[in-house]
Amino acid sequence: MSDIKKVVLAYSGGLDTSVIVRWLQETYNCEVVTFTADLGQGEEVEPARAKAEALGVKEIYIDDLREEFVRDFVFPMFRANTIYEGEYLLGTSIARPLIAKRLIEIANETGADAISHGATGKGNDQVRFELGAYALKPGVAVIAPWREWDLTSRETLMAYCEEHNIPVDFSGGKKKSPYSMDANLLHISYEGGVLEEPWAEAEEDMWRWTVAPEQAPDEPTYIELTYVNGDITAINGEVLSPATVLENLNKIGGANGIGRLDIVENRFVGMKARGCYETPGGTIMMKAHRAIESITLDREAAHLKDELMPRYAKLIYNGFWWSEERKMLQQMIDYSQRYVNGDVRLKLYKGNVIVVGRRSDDSLFDESIATFEDDAGSYNQKDAEGFIKLNALRMRIASSKGRNLLED
Amino acid sequence: MSDIKKVVLAYSGGLDTSVIVRWLQETYNCEVVTFTADLGQGEEVEPARAKAEALGVKEIYIDDLREEFVRDFVFPMFRANTIYEGEYLLGTSIARPLIAKRLIEIANETGADAISHGATGKGNDQVRFELGAYALKPGVAVIAPWREWDLTSRETLMAYCEEHNIPVDFSGGKKKSPYSMDANLLHISYEGGVLEEPWAEAEEDMWRWTVAPEQAPDEPTYIELTYVNGDITAINGEVLSPATVLENLNKIGGANGIGRLDIVENRFVGMKARGCYETPGGTIMMKAHRAIESITLDREAAHLKDELMPRYAKLIYNGFWWSEERKMLQQMIDYSQRYVNGDVRLKLYKGNVIVVGRRSDDSLFDESIATFEDDAGSYNQKDAEGFIKLNALRMRIASSKGRNLLED
Amino acid sequence: MSDIKKVVLAYSGGLDTSVIVRWLQETYNCEVVTFTADLGQGEEVEPARAKAEALGVKEIYIDDLREEFVRDFVFPMFRANTIYEGEYLLGTSIARPLIAKRLIEIANETGADAISHGATGKGNDQVRFELGAYALKPGVAVIAPWREWDLTSRETLMAYCEEHNIPVDFSGGKKKSPYSMDANLLHISYEGGVLEEPWAEAEEDMWRWTVAPEQAPDEPTYIELTYVNGDITAINGEVLSPATVLENLNKIGGANGIGRLDIVENRFVGMKARGCYETPGGTIMMKAHRAIESITLDREAAHLKDELMPRYAKLIYNGFWWSEERKMLQQMIDYSQRYVNGDVRLKLYKGNVIVVGRRSDDSLFDESIATFEDDAGSYNQKDAEGFIKLNALRMRIASSKGRNLLED
Amino acid sequence: MSDIKKVVLAYSGGLDTSVIVRWLQETYNCEVVTFTADLGQGEEVEPARAKAEALGVKEIYIDDLREEFVRDFVFPMFRANTIYEGEYLLGTSIARPLIAKRLIEIANETGADAISHGATGKGNDQVRFELGAYALKPGVAVIAPWREWDLTSRETLMAYCEEHNIPVDFSGGKKKSPYSMDANLLHISYEGGVLEEPWAEAEEDMWRWTVAPEQAPDEPTYIELTYVNGDITAINGEVLSPATVLENLNKIGGANGIGRLDIVENRFVGMKARGCYETPGGTIMMKAHRAIESITLDREAAHLKDELMPRYAKLIYNGFWWSEERKMLQQMIDYSQRYVNGDVRLKLYKGNVIVVGRRSDDSLFDESIATFEDDAGSYNQKDAEGFIKLNALRMRIASSKGRNLLED
Repeated sequence: MSDIKKVVLAYSGGLDTSVIVRWLQETYNCEVVTFTADLGQGEEVEPARAKAEALGVKEIYIDDLREEFVRDFVFPMFRANTIYEGEYLLGTSIARPLIAKRLIEIANETGADAISHGATGKGNDQVRFELGAYALKPGVAVIAPWREWDLTSRETLMAYCEEHNIPVDFSGGKKKSPYSMDANLLHISYEGGVLEEPWAEAEEDMWRWTVAPEQAPDEPTYIELTYVNGDITAINGEVLSPATVLENLNKIGGANGIGRLDIVENRFVGMKARGCYETPGGTIMMKAHRAIESITLDREAAHLKDELMPRYAKLIYNGFWWSEERKMLQQMIDYSQRYVNGDVRLKLYKGNVIVVGRRSDDSLFDESIATFEDDAGSYNQKDAEGFIKLNALRMRIASSKGRNLLED
Repeated sequence: MSDIKKVVLAYSGGLDTSVIVRWLQETYNCEVVTFTADLGQGEEVEPARAKAEALGVKEIYIDDLREEFVRDFVFPMFRANTIYEGEYLLGTSIARPLIAKRLIEIANETGADAISHGATGKGNDQVRFELGAYALKPGVAVIAPWREWDLTSRETLMAYCEEHNIPVDFSGGKKKSPYSMDANLLHISYEGGVLEEPWAEAEEDMWRWTVAPEQAPDEPTYIELTYVNGDITAINGEVLSPATVLENLNKIGGANGIGRLDIVENRFVGMKARGCYETPGGTIMMKAHRAIESITLDREAAHLKDELMPRYAKLIYNGFWWSEERKMLQQMIDYSQRYVNGDVRLKLYKGNVIVVGRRSDDSLFDESIATFEDDAGSYNQKDAEGFIKLNALRMRIASSKGRNLLED
Repeated sequence: MSDIKKVVLAYSGGLDTSVIVRWLQETYNCEVVTFTADLGQGEEVEPARAKAEALGVKEIYIDDLREEFVRDFVFPMFRANTIYEGEYLLGTSIARPLIAKRLIEIANETGADAISHGATGKGNDQVRFELGAYALKPGVAVIAPWREWDLTSRETLMAYCEEHNIPVDFSGGKKKSPYSMDANLLHISYEGGVLEEPWAEAEEDMWRWTVAPEQAPDEPTYIELTYVNGDITAINGEVLSPATVLENLNKIGGANGIGRLDIVENRFVGMKARGCYETPGGTIMMKAHRAIESITLDREAAHLKDELMPRYAKLIYNGFWWSEERKMLQQMIDYSQRYVNGDVRLKLYKGNVIVVGRRSDDSLFDESIATFEDDAGSYNQKDAEGFIKLNALRMRIASSKGRNLLED
Repeated sequence: MSDIKKVVLAYSGGLDTSVIVRWLQETYNCEVVTFTADLGQGEEVEPARAKAEALGVKEIYIDDLREEFVRDFVFPMFRANTIYEGEYLLGTSIARPLIAKRLIEIANETGADAISHGATGKGNDQVRFELGAYALKPGVAVIAPWREWDLTSRETLMAYCEEHNIPVDFSGGKKKSPYSMDANLLHISYEGGVLEEPWAEAEEDMWRWTVAPEQAPDEPTYIELTYVNGDITAINGEVLSPATVLENLNKIGGANGIGRLDIVENRFVGMKARGCYETPGGTIMMKAHRAIESITLDREAAHLKDELMPRYAKLIYNGFWWSEERKMLQQMIDYSQRYVNGDVRLKLYKGNVIVVGRRSDDSLFDESIATFEDDAGSYNQKDAEGFIKLNALRMRIASSKGRNLLED
């Protein structure tokens, strides 16, 4: 412990990580470098500078990572139609590897020998931060104060603040939320409080990014998304950067009551936890991406992706973004997207994302073959007979040899 | 061909299959047995008797298969959270193996040597019917008139009717729908017509089972579903049979604008096709089943199911219900459901199915461990350090041996 | 720590676990119950009784688990053709869950609150023992001396023995092997020593169960194995119990130089390790089981098993025998074996296991269809045309729409 | 039919395909272009020229494809450790897409509108040829004489030859083999004859490329293979081209009795068939590739490859080499090989391929961590405790909530 000289801390500017700054300085007698990222969480990051300075921090990093976040993390993930456990769009998970990467880059720049974060010992985020850190700098030390210290109740924490002259009104007078929250351009999440009872309905005033479907406009909103290689490049014909795409979709989706989710999920550390999420833009993207793939992707390519998706999602959820196996899957996924180009038209209405049209110069939809009308010979219906007969052959043989295929 | 003596036809009572009755009698000079099933398609099946009689059919089977359909086909499929290509709930696919089974049972009872159906040579249904038939009676002959005859346009069909005295007003004066449709308790489907252009929005008056979300009530509906071994046994505390469960959910869902779907899907025969579906009850069941599993299913059991689900869905879509591999997967799925018991509370509102609560005597959710509050020692946060370190070890070794894990 | 009253130790009777007995008594001031299992490791287990008594142990369990081991663990695993990382037949892995089960059963019988084992902190066995223990008795304490104590060198261990009057000549005068070994009816394993250099060839005198292929008889041995539901029930027509089957195959295989393996494998704890294994009977069983399945198993059933096998193998390797996901897979595997009946004839010769015949009343091999000669119409070659055309359709469409399927 | 003007035939120069030349000329009244490939089948291809000329063929293609075959087809396949149904190394399957590619290239060069081949309607090869042809030239016509003509017995074939002046002694006086055979650099295969009885042992004089293990040298042969990016580039330090690598390994392997296989396999068209194969070089390559991967590949990368391998093998077996899904998997596989560099040392002895050493500059084997000796702190054994505890957590919770994890 005692030989740590400098530690880079993922610093939000909030009370908890401010306490960590002081606690690291005291406990490890080391220099603390703070790193604050703008990932689109919707709060100013610049105020973190003054707070860090007030805590005696000399090296302060404040980065706008929004474009990198969406371009190199969110978009690649959406190419796979990634959903964890059938529901969760991985809003928190996907931000962690980027933060880990920057922590390590800053450690390398500043000559730090350790990194630190404010995640608890029960959650997934500690795993995601630390797997990333160890992968990118194998000799780094990791300090996870929540696993070490004894400031485990609000009271002891407050006492510590008082003792160390840390202003507790870090939230600017705002009432402390009863929920543990995390936000970035992809989503905002809520855990804890009344959510710890899975039978209890989430309270309406918890949600921050979306209106309730009941409060959304009575008129639907139609939008058109343009895809190039599986990524959205324009909304309603206007070319936009990745982060701007997501910002816009968040606004449009949030206004239409889209993207709320309330689930019980399985954490990597082995427990079940209730979480609520708002992912307005992501929810739209998920639906639209499947729609553009539906006309441009080969059937078996789509099925291969679908079969591997849960595994890919689990890798991201569990924090293995920088692993070889995630990168192998990504190679495959990215390759599959070279024809995923075209437009999707959506109707958004009170929580619903409804696909109403899809078109592409790379479409594999062949009207002349699919039609119920005369297809002018482009498909020979008689081919189906042989197709079926040989697909049936192994079952016919089994049955003719006396196996009863009706029985279980 | 000429040695077929008796054929069992899947007979709807509509114009097309009535033409088939006559065409079979003439072309094969054989006796036709009709089989009409009530699968909850929402139309009377009894009128098919008089129509068949008028066509000279002597052996007429009219069966109410609704309970068998939901109990032995729909429910088992929903235990797997089955979705084809991320969207389709397999409403048509899941009915076909039951029809195939009954066709073969009736062939065995009546001494028929062939079965016949009214599915076209371009679709999936021919495959599903025929794979089932060959699996259950390997020596059966299959007659698929749409792959054989020359009645390929409306005009030639009408001329045939006139020539053979088949009343064309089989629809009782109702205007012929521009869509090809299929219905059963699980869903109603639409193909053809304007849907053949994937960029065209479906017309509002196409939909039959659901109101538009815009027309749904302004007040949400709350319901509570009770699960036993993965199947719903009660709604709002009222114990119901499988078919009745689905009928009720269809009504509730349809009234709340739930379950519309508009997709381009990949058929087994190799083409892409646009389809629209209404699956109100199924859409509710899908969401609710995941919710009850979320608290009762082990994490890795859930993930194993998720990874195998696309494959299971494809088997059903492609018509392999009676195959060994589907039954193997079913063994695994059914086994996993022995603790999937409890209640799910849902809020239904204008197309949205929102889970607001889940509870179970078999819950694996452990508040004392998951809590952000003091857990009284039931979880040792320090365990996470070793957990992470060993999970990271292989990446740390790779990195320390000079591999750059940042690069693609 | 201090509140442990009684601990059940997996006791081999060797020096290391004898030291552990004393160390547990001293360190935890608790009673030690020893459990010694005969798993067919080829050494007498009864002598462990006197050694345990000499160490003051009052409750001594010595069990012959050979039949249970083969019947309930080895055979079920072989039904899946289980191989880890393409090579390893899991000889050590599959014994651990049974030992864990007995440790817990004995803990329950004797009122012990802890279990202990002699596995090191670097290997897989600690994981397998402890996952089993925690799964079957969630509140049990686990003591893993090698992770705790400071007897990490041979010298300190010897000093401890001298100090505590533990006779070091536990091996009865035999020279201590330079390898770390583990043996049971399925295999014997070697690690450590010169094997720690992966470029170094294993020394001939390391191997104990098999002769070198060079030393095996110049005449081949033919044997015939009879399968019922995927398990061997007779050798050369003689009905044998599971353990006796494996004992016999070990003898026959060992005499013919069969079953040596030299690999570098990936441990669950994250490192690569070199291991050498002798699995004479298992190597024969693996080959023979595939052969009987080749004529009795449906194609897609076989492929499904093949695709899931690596996952099943990994679960066993990693110690998750008692997990829900392993049991789900087992349900599926066992179900698939209901027709895996019949005989396999093998030629064994200097390390080679050669299948020379397979037959079954449940065979799906259909000579009349497969023949190159006239098949009397049981297969219509023209069916292949439609089969191919529709299998090609999606690629034909892609190609006709301008995609170049030659390019990567 | 009648509008086919020119057809490219895969022409071996043997009797059957010579009959096809004439039959095509007569039946379709079209010009025939012959294409004969040297794939290393071990027979001269140049004599095919005179034979084709004698049949009036004007455009004759004779290509040496050996290097392309091994470099672009065999090597990529071995990167995946590809085995079909646990046994078959896909020697025939992997040659077909290359032949299909050349058939289409020649069709494009010569303005042909059709291709033809001599494969029967029961086998896999027709599928492989035709899927390739349709994929690469969607409008091409395919003529498969064996599915069309009535020359289905040796007698009718001979009568046809006599009638059309086709010299029947095409085999140069050699006795016609009782087996249907196929050969290329990767293997030679045998089907038919006595092999149609799965209980019958193959006759020793059937095998052509390998000596029986009994006849192999009494002294082992040691070789050293050098890998670069997963492909062998040198044998015993001598740098060799891909085809030369395989030629050499075939010789060495064949001389040591390596690579015989006797199986019943499942064909894509739905039947089981007995096949015998000799794959001496491929058998060595398979074992060696796993060995070099064992020290250079990340664990989860290896496992991902293992889990997808059966699927990749099936794609090749079924003829989908040119499909999108095969190419997606190939992207992933090839990417994984960028560190698969180094040397493997093998001992070959009477049918056995024994790995005796592996080394690499890219090795992930870390002696300092794996050692049983003092590791100087590079691995903290205490980390294992937390690792195990959190891996066990979900089972501990299930068990503590009353589930009995012992029961099935």
